[in-house]
Amino acid sequence: MTFGYHDRIARVDLTTGQVTYLALEERVLRQYLGGTGLALRLLYDETGAEVDPLGPGNLLAFMVGPFAGTRVPTSDRFAVAGRSPLTGAWGESDCGGRWAGALKGAGLDGLLIGGAASSPVYLEVEDGQVQLRDASAYWGVDTYDLDLGGEMVCIGIAGERLLPHAAIMTGRSAGRAAGRTGLGAVMGSKKLKAIVARGRARAPLYDADGLAASVREAMPKIRENTKRMHDYGTGGGLETFERVGNLPIQNWRKGSWPEGAAKISGPHMAETILTGNYACGGCPIACGREVEVTSGPFAGVKGAGPEYETLGSFGSMCLIDDIEAIAKLNELCNRYGLDTISVGCTVAFAMEAQEKGLIEGGPTWGDGESAVRLVHEIAQGSTALGRLMSQGVRRAAEALGGRALEFAIHVKGMELPMHDPRAYSGMAVGYATSARGACHLQSLASFPSRGVGMPELGFGDPERTDDAVHGVINARYQDMMCLYDSLKLCKFTQFAKVNLTDIANWLQRVTGWDVTVDELMQTGERISNLKRLYNARLGLSRKDDTLPPRILTHRRGEGGTPDHLPHLGRLLADYYAFRGWDEEGIPAPAKLRELGLA
Amino acid sequence: MTFGYHDRIARVDLTTGQVTYLALEERVLRQYLGGTGLALRLLYDETGAEVDPLGPGNLLAFMVGPFAGTRVPTSDRFAVAGRSPLTGAWGESDCGGRWAGALKGAGLDGLLIGGAASSPVYLEVEDGQVQLRDASAYWGVDTYDLDLGGEMVCIGIAGERLLPHAAIMTGRSAGRAAGRTGLGAVMGSKKLKAIVARGRARAPLYDADGLAASVREAMPKIRENTKRMHDYGTGGGLETFERVGNLPIQNWRKGSWPEGAAKISGPHMAETILTGNYACGGCPIACGREVEVTSGPFAGVKGAGPEYETLGSFGSMCLIDDIEAIAKLNELCNRYGLDTISVGCTVAFAMEAQEKGLIEGGPTWGDGESAVRLVHEIAQGSTALGRLMSQGVRRAAEALGGRALEFAIHVKGMELPMHDPRAYSGMAVGYATSARGACHLQSLASFPSRGVGMPELGFGDPERTDDAVHGVINARYQDMMCLYDSLKLCKFTQFAKVNLTDIANWLQRVTGWDVTVDELMQTGERISNLKRLYNARLGLSRKDDTLPPRILTHRRGEGGTPDHLPHLGRLLADYYAFRGWDEEGIPAPAKLRELGLA
Repeated sequence: MTFGYHDRIARVDLTTGQVTYLALEERVLRQYLGGTGLALRLLYDETGAEVDPLGPGNLLAFMVGPFAGTRVPTSDRFAVAGRSPLTGAWGESDCGGRWAGALKGAGLDGLLIGGAASSPVYLEVEDGQVQLRDASAYWGVDTYDLDLGGEMVCIGIAGERLLPHAAIMTGRSAGRAAGRTGLGAVMGSKKLKAIVARGRARAPLYDADGLAASVREAMPKIRENTKRMHDYGTGGGLETFERVGNLPIQNWRKGSWPEGAAKISGPHMAETILTGNYACGGCPIACGREVEVTSGPFAGVKGAGPEYETLGSFGSMCLIDDIEAIAKLNELCNRYGLDTISVGCTVAFAMEAQEKGLIEGGPTWGDGESAVRLVHEIAQGSTALGRLMSQGVRRAAEALGGRALEFAIHVKGMELPMHDPRAYSGMAVGYATSARGACHLQSLASFPSRGVGMPELGFGDPERTDDAVHGVINARYQDMMCLYDSLKLCKFTQFAKVNLTDIANWLQRVTGWDVTVDELMQTGERISNLKRLYNARLGLSRKDDTLPPRILTHRRGEGGTPDHLPHLGRLLADYYAFRGWDEEGIPAPAKLRELGLA
Repeated sequence: MTFGYHDRIARVDLTTGQVTYLALEERVLRQYLGGTGLALRLLYDETGAEVDPLGPGNLLAFMVGPFAGTRVPTSDRFAVAGRSPLTGAWGESDCGGRWAGALKGAGLDGLLIGGAASSPVYLEVEDGQVQLRDASAYWGVDTYDLDLGGEMVCIGIAGERLLPHAAIMTGRSAGRAAGRTGLGAVMGSKKLKAIVARGRARAPLYDADGLAASVREAMPKIRENTKRMHDYGTGGGLETFERVGNLPIQNWRKGSWPEGAAKISGPHMAETILTGNYACGGCPIACGREVEVTSGPFAGVKGAGPEYETLGSFGSMCLIDDIEAIAKLNELCNRYGLDTISVGCTVAFAMEAQEKGLIEGGPTWGDGESAVRLVHEIAQGSTALGRLMSQGVRRAAEALGGRALEFAIHVKGMELPMHDPRAYSGMAVGYATSARGACHLQSLASFPSRGVGMPELGFGDPERTDDAVHGVINARYQDMMCLYDSLKLCKFTQFAKVNLTDIANWLQRVTGWDVTVDELMQTGERISNLKRLYNARLGLSRKDDTLPPRILTHRRGEGGTPDHLPHLGRLLADYYAFRGWDEEGIPAPAKLRELGLA
């Protein structure tokens, strides 16, 4: 048994009901660590190019990291991965909550789920064993109402209906989501309602005392540096983001909305609907919001509240400045099991289509009730408009055609999250190149200028909008984010001044490996490159690394960055050159050999 | 009768055989002048969005300008326009020769041709009358061998076979082509083999003596400033273009090819295969080349020789440094009636596809005989590869899919001409925004830095690769080029230091209108905007204004501009803002009112 691991992955075939267990070589674990990296390695090897995202051939991986179940802060996280129904390319999502710890406690490092059941099932994991259970009685049940007696991941009716924005939900009042890339629909296509895990098994640690001491030492700096996030959640930064031009407004048209931002911010939430906060397992930050709306049109909302991405997607993107409406929209998405970013962006897209006369009966700017109506229609497919918009921005725009393609804001089919590349050029190249489509979490390279980042990598304090450096910085950040996603650490630990030296130290104490920062970064690079190979096998290449024309050519003319437009061609050229990728944006043989991927 | 015009456009319905004649209002003539502008106005009004480029509903316009048949130098030119079979959008091509003067001499300013004949026909124009003649005996006849007793425009078998690269040819040994956008296929779809014109009618001039005096005065400066073009043709600049990074090499991959460039240059042609030069009607420049190949594998070539675009497309693009092979390829295209730019680029594309193993039996880099073979196969459709490549780069790449899309170098479906936007950012925005797809002739804005241009517009000598100015300069240049294309002046008069004041003066003498340089530039702007409206009606907008990823992200790393990449987003933003176009790249109402287009 390898330190930090149970060395046990369950392989479930839902068509036959058969469950087998894989043991992994230590060499593979050290090269891919866990989480996203390990999921990727297994999926790359086990699924070919022709698998249908919603067919039984698609494998869905749930994977925790070597820190799960340990004292390492923010490590109660899991990755879910498979071919995305939203983009058709590499799909992955990272999620907190308390399920990862429970799965590790149940004696597994992960599950690989293939095939498809003929009627609804759920999985129960306990004592290292996976059991299939009948879920017929739970099909159609709201995520809030589902109780299977343990920590679970589950889908709502969006996943059951195979919507490409369907999320996988977990935690109390479904407050945590593996939201992006539509992997909830993959669960739905397999008729898999949920996975419950129970247990307290511990994977062995190489140096438990040393780890405990090191974590104890780190805790005060984490608490100290994340106080604002503890108090105000991720929405605490929203007004700052509005001021610097980072907050998208009205489907990426406007650059300034200060009064609206003030009304949907974390501090405003704290003064109004906030009732408390909550944390993922082992996390001292506790950025999660608990909210309640007691009166008005949205009365009855109670549970997990909206975080920054949701405040942006349903708030500034839709010009909705009513925090109670946003809380309602957030709860609806959590209940239905929908990704709030993609759905909020789709509602904003529908508002613009309505304004421009391309649809009828759609929602209108700033009108929370019309947005609530459309979310119901999307989830339930109850109207033609709901069915159209339920396919997401790219497909809805393709169906509408013509002008609608002008304001369909996505990359590779995934709607953009709430960070504007016209404020941070790093985000431009990050969105354009991320394997799963427009992704801010693969590229926190927007933030070095704000004092956050990894001094070990030697990046100073580059000008926020300087295109000269961000191609290279972004490549390094993506590698680092692949590392985080594989170790399953929350990226907010960066804000907490946790650095790569801390992380290497923890991994040494857990596994006994003599890992260095350099090895960790090369592991991240290996995973970045293998994601690229996964997509290349599906026909994706440099031609798909681009941004919507509104982001490339539309100056907002107001706000914190009124004029800047990212020089995407230059950023990409720098990025590819640094990565050692060829003229088609594919890892060149020399790079593959260097990373042991040849 | 308006000075400078016969006020007579023939409207031919080939389905019924009916010919009618339109008289035009002076107001419309002054607003659109002739050539491209007048063709555009008529086609915009008479054809809707749903016309099939190769259906009988497509109207094909042939139009001369107010200077045709006068002493104004380089005015023996015509425009041909219609919906393009290559791009599906606005199609136009500009052409010299001696046919425009003959058509004016036959008493017409232009023809509008609709419907489709049931068997091959040609048109005969004489004494202001158009007659339909049986062309059954001429169908399938080589452009070199066709003789209908007068100046004519005609198609070869490429047009008969409806190839989207089919050109309309004119002049001795078919040396002049309305090459781009595939309008030869529109003639083919109408079963129209040729249009012959004969006559010596003169449109009335307002001030013939004043015009003669003014032209006499201009002639020495034209001769003096175009001596190199007279001696070496357009290929005279090829080596300079190679040195500064303007010459595309190996399907836009490389930046340097000095030894090859020396072997395909105008001076080298003069030392080898050149036998003389020739001029379009009334042109003192005489850039046309006469060549003959008397020995070797390409012996037998005799007639019009390759000009710069052809030397680039079949030469540096294909790494073919054998000028005799290029002369052969040029003659083949002229005989078949094919656009040398698009076909040369398609051969280069096929060479890269062959190198990368995506096709079999294709041509190989530098091998002229394999290129000759493919051109025959394209024109005749004699092999599967020929049929695939006969559809042009965009469609061939779409059919091949995957990696082929990475090196399919086109804009809006039209292959790029021989000027690299990585040397001249002005070309980047020009290619991206030109209505007919990648077009260098709508945007000579690459050249201001080289001392060529219009001082009246107030542009100095901007840095060649400076992205800060080219968005705006390009808009002005496109307007100016629309003006030239409507007056039907050769753009080489710019190199001859003919300026807008000269042109306004000539137009005053011809028409009696008190036109100013400002009015002329506004006319050009009106035409630019109406082209944009034509394409907008077909669903084109800002999203279609882009460049292939190789141009945007691939640094050549050698040659005159090894590192520069155009900042297309910024260039476009400047361009749209200056143009007064909206967030979708469509002329805004205020601009349309200003131009009388509301």
